[in-house]
Amino acid sequence: MKKRYFIECAYDGTDFSGWQIQPRVETVQGIIENRLSNLYGNRLIKITGCGRTDAGVHASQFFFHVDLDLFLPPDQLTYKLNKMLPRAIAIRAVIEVADKAHARFDAEKRTYRYFIHQKKSPFLQQYSEYYPRPLSVEKMNEAAALLLGRQDFTSFSKLHTDVNNNFCTVYAAKWIKTNNQLCFEITANRFLRNMVRAIVGTLLEIGEQKQPVEYIQEIIALKNREEAGVSVPAKGLFLVKIEYPFF
Amino acid sequence: MKKRYFIECAYDGTDFSGWQIQPRVETVQGIIENRLSNLYGNRLIKITGCGRTDAGVHASQFFFHVDLDLFLPPDQLTYKLNKMLPRAIAIRAVIEVADKAHARFDAEKRTYRYFIHQKKSPFLQQYSEYYPRPLSVEKMNEAAALLLGRQDFTSFSKLHTDVNNNFCTVYAAKWIKTNNQLCFEITANRFLRNMVRAIVGTLLEIGEQKQPVEYIQEIIALKNREEAGVSVPAKGLFLVKIEYPFF
Repeated sequence: MKKRYFIECAYDGTDFSGWQIQPRVETVQGIIENRLSNLYGNRLIKITGCGRTDAGVHASQFFFHVDLDLFLPPDQLTYKLNKMLPRAIAIRAVIEVADKAHARFDAEKRTYRYFIHQKKSPFLQQYSEYYPRPLSVEKMNEAAALLLGRQDFTSFSKLHTDVNNNFCTVYAAKWIKTNNQLCFEITANRFLRNMVRAIVGTLLEIGEQKQPVEYIQEIIALKNREEAGVSVPAKGLFLVKIEYPFF
Repeated sequence: MKKRYFIECAYDGTDFSGWQIQPRVETVQGIIENRLSNLYGNRLIKITGCGRTDAGVHASQFFFHVDLDLFLPPDQLTYKLNKMLPRAIAIRAVIEVADKAHARFDAEKRTYRYFIHQKKSPFLQQYSEYYPRPLSVEKMNEAAALLLGRQDFTSFSKLHTDVNNNFCTVYAAKWIKTNNQLCFEITANRFLRNMVRAIVGTLLEIGEQKQPVEYIQEIIALKNREEAGVSVPAKGLFLVKIEYPFF
């Protein structure tokens, strides 16, 4: 008998055309569905992700749900899938959930991180954007604080997306300094397409003092995607956490 | 007037055929000499490295010396070279030294690190070897302690190298656990070709309990390269520190 499972995974998005399955290109969803189908005698198996990361974006935590007649214990399914999947995709856990649990609709909070480094570094370049120009982290954090709360983020979304409204509730948004990197971390109930990368691009303009801190409020108020700063490259962006009410 | 400079750099060895210049392949030395020559009106410029890393081996710290008639301050030379060099090579500093200072012969200690990870991880694979089999870190550390002191490391060197003798003094050798990785760190006055990778391969056999701890002493005593464990892949190996008496 089929039961519903949440599967926790992680992936390096560098060589994928994003999460969502599409014809003629390699996607994370496409590869996982293919391997699951192989395991189940080539029956068609569909999975539902917690969101859709764009081409080149990574996930250090990602969940999808799938209905399976599990013929082996969760640990062994994890092991088998890891053997079958390319090195860029890792399965972390297989967790039985309630029949109606939904990886996308039940997710209450999502957290993304964007990494930049300001000193040339051979070892950071794959997952971090090289940004040598001087930045005021203080000003970027003042601007980040203006993102908090429930606001219409149309200015930071891609045009022509299929969502009903562009309201998002941002719970946290801040820049963190590590040894060799700067990291922007943002938590919200939902994100629009391209939203984090457009926000980071805008915050960097403020950090460079090309724009004042209040610039971010002005852009939000305009509700026009044309107004936001240039999007930063995908390689520095990680989906790092998804929060559900049930675990 | 020419003066001698030590230049500190770092490089990702993934796409290079090692440090040492060779015809028809990309090497770190070859690229740096080429860019320096470009800066100096295409005059031939030779540099001398602190050692020779093999193909695919990385360096998070490396020094070379070069005699230059510096026409701009060290900081600006650093900046200019970083602009000219590929992203896989970073220049950290340009330091004036005594005329006779020698990047290779004056180096008193060198430290290497080798990284492995035991849980499949998309983000570690470029610089760390995936090694899922269970390991006893305790036994590997007992064996590592047997490497200390001045010993003939012929068993851990490549055959037919051009050195006079195979004695090395090992000052420190231990395994360190981090969050997601195991790291073997070894410091010695000198290293023979392939030595760290052959030592790590042998320690892993001991960690898997295929061999007893004393196995490492037996191999050293044999002074025969055929006897050591299989070398581990280059991608997990980093030269991380070079110590000179003068800084």
